[in-house]
Amino acid sequence: MIKSVFLTVQPFNKKILVKKGSDILSSLVKGGIFITSHCGGKGICRKCKIKILKGSFYSEEEEKLTEERKDKNIYLACRTKVMGNLEIEILPETVISEKVEDKTFEKEGEFSYRTHPVKDDFGLSPITKKIFLKLPQPSFEDTTSDYERLLRELKKITDEIPFSINIESIRKLPNILRDGLGELTLTVVKDEKYYEVVNIEQGDTSLNNFGIAIDIGTTTIAASLLDIKEEVVLKKGVTFNRQASFGDDIISRIVFAEKKGGLKKLHQAVVETVNGMIVNLTESCGISINDIYCVVISGNMTMVHLLLEINPSFLRKEPYIPVANIFPLFKSSDVGIRINRKGVVATIPGGYPYVGGDITAGILISGIYKEEVLSLFVDIGTNGEIVVGNKDFLVCASASAGPAFEGSGVRNGVRVMEGAIQTFQIRNEDVHFETVGGTKPIGICGSGYIELLCELFKNNIINRNGIFIGKHKRIIEKDGMKEFVVTENSANGEEIAITQADIDNLIRAKGAIFSAISTILKTIGLKFEDIKKFYIAGGFGNSINIKKAVEIGLLPDLPEERFKFLGNTSLRGAEGYILSEEFRRLSREIIKKLTYVDLSRSPIYMEEYMKSLFIPHTDYLETLEFK
Amino acid sequence: MIKSVFLTVQPFNKKILVKKGSDILSSLVKGGIFITSHCGGKGICRKCKIKILKGSFYSEEEEKLTEERKDKNIYLACRTKVMGNLEIEILPETVISEKVEDKTFEKEGEFSYRTHPVKDDFGLSPITKKIFLKLPQPSFEDTTSDYERLLRELKKITDEIPFSINIESIRKLPNILRDGLGELTLTVVKDEKYYEVVNIEQGDTSLNNFGIAIDIGTTTIAASLLDIKEEVVLKKGVTFNRQASFGDDIISRIVFAEKKGGLKKLHQAVVETVNGMIVNLTESCGISINDIYCVVISGNMTMVHLLLEINPSFLRKEPYIPVANIFPLFKSSDVGIRINRKGVVATIPGGYPYVGGDITAGILISGIYKEEVLSLFVDIGTNGEIVVGNKDFLVCASASAGPAFEGSGVRNGVRVMEGAIQTFQIRNEDVHFETVGGTKPIGICGSGYIELLCELFKNNIINRNGIFIGKHKRIIEKDGMKEFVVTENSANGEEIAITQADIDNLIRAKGAIFSAISTILKTIGLKFEDIKKFYIAGGFGNSINIKKAVEIGLLPDLPEERFKFLGNTSLRGAEGYILSEEFRRLSREIIKKLTYVDLSRSPIYMEEYMKSLFIPHTDYLETLEFK
Repeated sequence: MIKSVFLTVQPFNKKILVKKGSDILSSLVKGGIFITSHCGGKGICRKCKIKILKGSFYSEEEEKLTEERKDKNIYLACRTKVMGNLEIEILPETVISEKVEDKTFEKEGEFSYRTHPVKDDFGLSPITKKIFLKLPQPSFEDTTSDYERLLRELKKITDEIPFSINIESIRKLPNILRDGLGELTLTVVKDEKYYEVVNIEQGDTSLNNFGIAIDIGTTTIAASLLDIKEEVVLKKGVTFNRQASFGDDIISRIVFAEKKGGLKKLHQAVVETVNGMIVNLTESCGISINDIYCVVISGNMTMVHLLLEINPSFLRKEPYIPVANIFPLFKSSDVGIRINRKGVVATIPGGYPYVGGDITAGILISGIYKEEVLSLFVDIGTNGEIVVGNKDFLVCASASAGPAFEGSGVRNGVRVMEGAIQTFQIRNEDVHFETVGGTKPIGICGSGYIELLCELFKNNIINRNGIFIGKHKRIIEKDGMKEFVVTENSANGEEIAITQADIDNLIRAKGAIFSAISTILKTIGLKFEDIKKFYIAGGFGNSINIKKAVEIGLLPDLPEERFKFLGNTSLRGAEGYILSEEFRRLSREIIKKLTYVDLSRSPIYMEEYMKSLFIPHTDYLETLEFK
Repeated sequence: MIKSVFLTVQPFNKKILVKKGSDILSSLVKGGIFITSHCGGKGICRKCKIKILKGSFYSEEEEKLTEERKDKNIYLACRTKVMGNLEIEILPETVISEKVEDKTFEKEGEFSYRTHPVKDDFGLSPITKKIFLKLPQPSFEDTTSDYERLLRELKKITDEIPFSINIESIRKLPNILRDGLGELTLTVVKDEKYYEVVNIEQGDTSLNNFGIAIDIGTTTIAASLLDIKEEVVLKKGVTFNRQASFGDDIISRIVFAEKKGGLKKLHQAVVETVNGMIVNLTESCGISINDIYCVVISGNMTMVHLLLEINPSFLRKEPYIPVANIFPLFKSSDVGIRINRKGVVATIPGGYPYVGGDITAGILISGIYKEEVLSLFVDIGTNGEIVVGNKDFLVCASASAGPAFEGSGVRNGVRVMEGAIQTFQIRNEDVHFETVGGTKPIGICGSGYIELLCELFKNNIINRNGIFIGKHKRIIEKDGMKEFVVTENSANGEEIAITQADIDNLIRAKGAIFSAISTILKTIGLKFEDIKKFYIAGGFGNSINIKKAVEIGLLPDLPEERFKFLGNTSLRGAEGYILSEEFRRLSREIIKKLTYVDLSRSPIYMEEYMKSLFIPHTDYLETLEFK
């Protein structure tokens, strides 16, 4: 008989009952604690570090531990087994935080769609509407039945009549009609062909109509709480996709989904993340989840399939087919998302297996689809999607950049969070950096790596191939690999460094995006200079230094005023999708207009990619002038 | 502390754990055994007889028991308390049977809608359709997504596209599409504005498409199992509405529904009855309930409200308003009916609070709505509904006949079942009768009472007022009331008799129906002779003796060839509603065309009713000639 023991997890002081001999990583997942693990528990990525506080354990990697790590009792969760009651501590850089940004928007203040007002651009007609009606009471002169009475009043304000109403609403109707003296509020879901009454309430509750917009990224999930009646975002939040515990990029997620029980686990991980955010957003605004009837999801195809618990396998198998480009509306309860039981979940239509609804959102929010001049839109994430075009045409492509710029797959990479290093300056042997929040550093985030790479190159510490050159005193060698030590004084006492492997990773990431841009342009016979507007979207898009991004060859060398940062266009698209029928109609139209360049089958791409694996790239003299 | 004891119920050998001191009637209900109780447990109707076998009990009516009943240990369940472990036996005449008529229709043989073929009259387009499709496999030349591929093929055979598809179907789609090499079968629900894909199956399952038609009467429930693809009824069944335990007529049911928890109990009773029938019908035909996607309900307004668990209270309160005349489709799982989880429940639209969907069905099945000549349709049940008209107009009315003709509210009344006396002949002092199945008599059913009343009158045993006259040796007096003993040799050893109160009841019942007919005719300025076709529907409609029904004044004296028995038009209407879009369209149209005469507010009705409380009635000489 296998004994059960307790794993106590600090700083949450959470006890998890596990079987003796279980590894710590899967024990944490069982206990609902998700820490970063890029390889999914294979012992390769070495990300899932935890600190042993006390108790009985067995580590499979005793030999490999550096003295320092052993001193500090740092072990890999996936390689360490619980052999008796054990107490561990989660390290801040590994925790997949649930903290929602404390950023409440004033109605008159900063508001995401003020810059591209949905109202002006698209017209307003939300996907879930509340309709207040005052019905005359039944009498001998007017014996119309309760339900037909309701429809009769509805007909006075709209030509269209719902095709469906659930039984709970009908059951409530007779008493509400009489107790409320005919004053009642319908909640209707209406989208293209769909038109259903989902709830009936007594009196006028039309002010209580809220929606949740969600951007599901491979790594990061962002959400906003909308007051639909007032057309404002009340609160936004960002957190990490708990699926990260099961692998870091789209393909490893699909592979995991193909295993027995894998799809369900991935589905539950993302649904739990989303439900947690909904609770945080609504509770901090004092809003009941019962007043939320719609959730709109913007995300890449794989994320949408996984959220809906739909087999994503054929997205990665030839001929690469999604289960749907335009998914119908689903009941929130069928998806597992906890809003009003009768609410719906909608997803923004996506054009191609690797250019999904998040990019449809980007096209609409950037306005590229109606530009007169030639424009380019790039969304930088774990995948980099590019759209080139204007009001006449739209061409798209997708490149697998890897998660390096999101702080994954690089040794001291972290997401944008307190303690993340985001700027660098190197003057001889001095390294100056700034962290988010000004606290002790915990690692380097994407924008930090762009600056670090640029500074290393400008200071001749690495060459155009990214290889360490010279004899800088901060270059050391460990386990046969060179690394540049940024600081020894990190929050957890370990050094923070950039390794040769990290640099190779980063160069591949920036190269993938740059070469995707150049390939798509060459494919349609255009040059960089033809791009008059260059829109950049993505989680880190707001904080990168353009000049340095050009200098390392992530972005092409265009006049700085042509670049425009749009922030998270995926999330803003989800907000637009909730609020506007015209937005929804356009999103269905856009994907028909969109053509796709398959980089993996493009003869140009491999050549462009090879050229881009330099700093900045081999087109250097053509496109870049050092200032 | 109250002790729990066992109530053992024979012949089921079922043990029910009950609190000491509980009455037997409610203990039986708790155990899922429903016996006849017209008064709902008040000790008035004296119907809920049971036999005590052994054990400890206390009867509140010791004094009132006849020696004979005491000898045989017959007690009223509602007046008898369980004081310790107790064993009782349910008497056959009180049990609310679940037995389904063993009547399988051959495809070429007797089939209910052969006489009015739905196909010819209404055209075929069932409410739930199975559509077999063969989809081309995805390829690099044809990369349409799975769902859009499905819609594309569907568009080739129909202009209309479903507005909705459930998530389970979408989840199954990718594997079904590939494993089945594109061959799949959709199950769609389509009705007027409603069009939903409810299931997707691999391969061709279009032969497996079944539906259940149900007539919910106040007393009796009839059901048929349809093979939708083949357009035939596979099997029919009839059973008793378990709601009878909570009161016998519509008004007492509504009053019970108004009590705390009452609506739920009534809803559960009828849903359990219906679910039991569905199991019986499908099992005996070897059909899975998962292949049933629709149930169509035909019934009076109150029955429909109760089935749907919708408050029926306002049907009996001024100004008498149903919650809906045309209910939308509901999910079977929301109603609690056990067919395929994704199936639907539809109800036939009803015109007025007391002229419901069962009468809409009768109008369509009788064809009165398209008659050239003036016609009359009457459905005789606990309520008697009458429709007069032709292709130009339709007028209806409803009279509360009471359940006497259905074997309730009369001392030895039983439903049509084995042992029920259904024919009578009296020659002097000899009483000849025949029972259903030729077994020992257990009571008298509706058609039996018509014949008995007629024979008593013709033999001068009762006068025109229904009062016992003369000195027939079978007339005895008991508890101060005269009764005519039909036999002492019944199945349970008790006498079977018709009392003065029974006769009064029966005269009131036949009078209510006859006067309703005469009132509606007078209201629109017509005479009996103007009626060229006289359609009779209802459970007992097939077996009554017309001549005797005319002689007692239940039916008007018209040439016999004008009468036509239609049997259960309510059930046949439900079958038509499943099979034909045109039937469904007409049923929505018919109720708009129908006008209503409210007898309770009619000045003519009371006069007509008073005149009808004679045998045959005071219009005797005008309408009847003794043969």
